[in-house]
Amino acid sequence: MHISRTQFYGASTLDGFLSTNDDRIDWLLQFGDVTSSYAGFIAQVGAMAMGASTYEWLIRNHVRPHSPERQPWPYAQPTWVFTHRTLPRIQGANIRFVEGDVRPVHAAMLQRAAGKNIWIVGGGDLVGQFWDLGLLDDLIVQITPVTIGAGKPLLPRTIDSPPLQLVSVQQYGPFAELRYEVQKSL
Amino acid sequence: MHISRTQFYGASTLDGFLSTNDDRIDWLLQFGDVTSSYAGFIAQVGAMAMGASTYEWLIRNHVRPHSPERQPWPYAQPTWVFTHRTLPRIQGANIRFVEGDVRPVHAAMLQRAAGKNIWIVGGGDLVGQFWDLGLLDDLIVQITPVTIGAGKPLLPRTIDSPPLQLVSVQQYGPFAELRYEVQKSL
Repeated sequence: MHISRTQFYGASTLDGFLSTNDDRIDWLLQFGDVTSSYAGFIAQVGAMAMGASTYEWLIRNHVRPHSPERQPWPYAQPTWVFTHRTLPRIQGANIRFVEGDVRPVHAAMLQRAAGKNIWIVGGGDLVGQFWDLGLLDDLIVQITPVTIGAGKPLLPRTIDSPPLQLVSVQQYGPFAELRYEVQKSL
Repeated sequence: MHISRTQFYGASTLDGFLSTNDDRIDWLLQFGDVTSSYAGFIAQVGAMAMGASTYEWLIRNHVRPHSPERQPWPYAQPTWVFTHRTLPRIQGANIRFVEGDVRPVHAAMLQRAAGKNIWIVGGGDLVGQFWDLGLLDDLIVQITPVTIGAGKPLLPRTIDSPPLQLVSVQQYGPFAELRYEVQKSL
């Protein structure tokens, strides 16, 4: 059986930001649809986790429930949303709201993923919380050819000893996709 | 004749820093000697520019003039050091100290480079000053498999419209080298 891996997968600016400080990613959206590794990646995902800002971004920019262009929630996988506040529910979305320690949530996700992978969508601090506990296995980052000077960091942690292990690099049009494995300290 | 290109070439953390805030790069030095593009790169460089912190780093960590392990200045190319303060000279080094507007310095460097390239060694703000004036052609960045959370930024500017143009990606052991061309706005 495949062993689940817990992964961050997402786009960063060249200077290491996931979004502006007000959660905008215009710098990413300008590229439109680009051939990528996403279809292969998401096919192996069995459970997802995200923070409140990421969830709200998806509602505001994709689902848009109060707009004529409303869209369904884009993921079939069960999704855990970490939040300290009450967030709107989305009809038809397989979502549970949680807060606090990521360990019991990770255990529940592993069970639901049943051998498929776990995608930590973001933000960076949530990814860091999984890393803090030795629960993060892979970082798969699409480096976007922009700098924005300030914003919400990819991964607000010091990970240098041991360093990450670069597994592969691949160009997809304007993006450089870097795949890293987290080396577990003994 | 080859047309000179003005280039940044150097290592960045995955989260976009050139050094810690106190100018340390232990996270980079831990990898020791790695096969890289450096020999091919430096062979095409005809003139160099760097900021005061970079110059002082080289003296403190490489030249070490007051140490039994003292080394000669490592570059044959004429080098312009941007500084507002008086810095020590190094015997045998082809160096001139300058300050202020980078344009006349760039013109002088172009003349001395005689068709070879110009290397802006760093720091990031000096690279930014060349970029501000449309004088930067290429960014060649070795992404090091570490995050440090805070430090001196690779390029403290917003470069997103137009974005940089990704020319190539190449793995050198633990490093992912990304080559970008600066797209000049009309």
